[in-house]
Amino acid sequence: MQSGGRVAPVALDAMGGDNAPGEIVAGAVQAVRERGIPVVLVGQPRLLHQALSEHDAVSEIPIVRAEEALAMDEGALASLRRPRSSIAIACHLVRRGDAASVVSAGSTAGIVATGRLRLRGQQGVVRPAIAVALPTRPTPTVLLDAGATADAKPEMLVQFAHLGVAYAEAALDLRSPRVGLLTIGAEAEKGNKLAKRAHELLVATPGIDFTGNVEGHDLLAGKVDVVVTDGFTGNVALKTLEGSVRYAFGQLRETIGESRVARIGGLLQRARLRELSDRLDPEAHGGAVLLGLNGTVVIAHGSSKAKGIAAACELAARLAAQGIVTRIGERIASTPKSHRLW
Amino acid sequence: MQSGGRVAPVALDAMGGDNAPGEIVAGAVQAVRERGIPVVLVGQPRLLHQALSEHDAVSEIPIVRAEEALAMDEGALASLRRPRSSIAIACHLVRRGDAASVVSAGSTAGIVATGRLRLRGQQGVVRPAIAVALPTRPTPTVLLDAGATADAKPEMLVQFAHLGVAYAEAALDLRSPRVGLLTIGAEAEKGNKLAKRAHELLVATPGIDFTGNVEGHDLLAGKVDVVVTDGFTGNVALKTLEGSVRYAFGQLRETIGESRVARIGGLLQRARLRELSDRLDPEAHGGAVLLGLNGTVVIAHGSSKAKGIAAACELAARLAAQGIVTRIGERIASTPKSHRLW
Repeated sequence: MQSGGRVAPVALDAMGGDNAPGEIVAGAVQAVRERGIPVVLVGQPRLLHQALSEHDAVSEIPIVRAEEALAMDEGALASLRRPRSSIAIACHLVRRGDAASVVSAGSTAGIVATGRLRLRGQQGVVRPAIAVALPTRPTPTVLLDAGATADAKPEMLVQFAHLGVAYAEAALDLRSPRVGLLTIGAEAEKGNKLAKRAHELLVATPGIDFTGNVEGHDLLAGKVDVVVTDGFTGNVALKTLEGSVRYAFGQLRETIGESRVARIGGLLQRARLRELSDRLDPEAHGGAVLLGLNGTVVIAHGSSKAKGIAAACELAARLAAQGIVTRIGERIASTPKSHRLW
Repeated sequence: MQSGGRVAPVALDAMGGDNAPGEIVAGAVQAVRERGIPVVLVGQPRLLHQALSEHDAVSEIPIVRAEEALAMDEGALASLRRPRSSIAIACHLVRRGDAASVVSAGSTAGIVATGRLRLRGQQGVVRPAIAVALPTRPTPTVLLDAGATADAKPEMLVQFAHLGVAYAEAALDLRSPRVGLLTIGAEAEKGNKLAKRAHELLVATPGIDFTGNVEGHDLLAGKVDVVVTDGFTGNVALKTLEGSVRYAFGQLRETIGESRVARIGGLLQRARLRELSDRLDPEAHGGAVLLGLNGTVVIAHGSSKAKGIAAACELAARLAAQGIVTRIGERIASTPKSHRLW
């Protein structure tokens, strides 16, 4: 999105997240200085001015006033009661063309509700979805929906496939991403009613390289580029995955610490393990992305520090520069009438 | 279950599994000799007689003839076409009172379909569920349904809670197990329609110590003793969990192998790691259990070797000795009429 020849900035919700506004402002400074991403901070001006002063960055990063904020424990309803919250104002900047996309480390429920209300669903998209990039190799695997639409219909899963393909192309530079459907067996007839019907629809959808069903143990196997599911299943799977990897490393640390001989081995490996856990760190990837609205919102982890916020800003800028909203619009519009179910 | 003063044997499907009948027969011999579990082998007599001869065990373990078998890639429909399959005959022995419970390493879909057809649902239980014990500490956490009933209704989830509590008491010796509902947020209103309604019902169910919602990352945290969900979500979560733990260990092995210094550390830790991966090995726990029928079926991993089969036989014998079917029947029957939704 362009504004007067300049690249439109990322609107960064400075009040959302466990470490707001300090780490958010520090992340904005990193994004601007180290990654060349233009950012505008949205929040309480006095606090933000003070935080920017600490970085000598008052002249580098503009502030847009928002006196209110959504608390981390406030959910969907609060977003209706706070039209002047920092996340609502950030969305408004995108709607008005003054920002390219939004970044927030606030509560996911609050961000999704505010995004749907302020940005609205883009033409033809029935429900939004949250996409996350899982740390598979050589390229990440996109899982969606990770929690925006808990009760989905089969035709929504087909739309999520389009959103996921557009995301994989725009954010990860993949060509003709392979799409899998998350269910409970490889055969077409395995699954609940939702998955079985979605399978039939995906087989018949042009423009999607649908390779069939995938299962829970395939999520980290890199078999496909995009995994489609409803927001309930996707959220359970994502949190199970994160918890299981954390559990495995925790068990390992415990095991290493149990004997002195093993502990020496542990010291030797510490540097390597840190590299590995960095790679598995969701913050390094910029966070989850809310897709299907008239503007893109990157949802950073609530506990994000400066580095994570800077990565989220870079992802938000990239998605805008790659025209993710337009790409999704073209995919949805090109669906043959005979295949439209909305 | 008693028969003429003796403990009724476990009916072991000798033809199911990737390593049938060799490892199955070896597992039966281990169960009988090392664990004192009476076992009857069900399958092709000539093959089984030959396999038993190799262990000098022909006189120790009886054989019940079943000329047919379900192949590992055969699903639910095949069970209708093969009334004389080894798994069908094994179920029949339980139905007739000649065996206490069933063990099979065959395909889960085939076992569930055959079990439902031959054992029938027990009085008042609307749908069966598969329970698995996750390797949490100090005691395992029971997850159900792990795949028997993909499309569940809220009242079925309440019944699954009863099945899970009965299982935790009978198999794991837990008193007043705490029950959690798997969904996508801690608050009561978080989830899809199924989970939200199930939450309301569970709160109002006497005889269940319902502690509220749990999320994917809680599955291995040991917060509750029983986690209830539908068979679709449960199966996705279980396979995601297994795949993620395997992925984390794989990444670790790769990391350890990457440098020579780190490799030395790896050697020192190898013994400890083996202990750990043994503990996380699902075979060590005996396998998944199909609950809610007139007889209990333990579903061993398809790739089970002798040790896993012996553990499955021990679990099957224990569940029968603890009267799991009667316990479930009493729980279901004691549900106040005002809370019955079936």
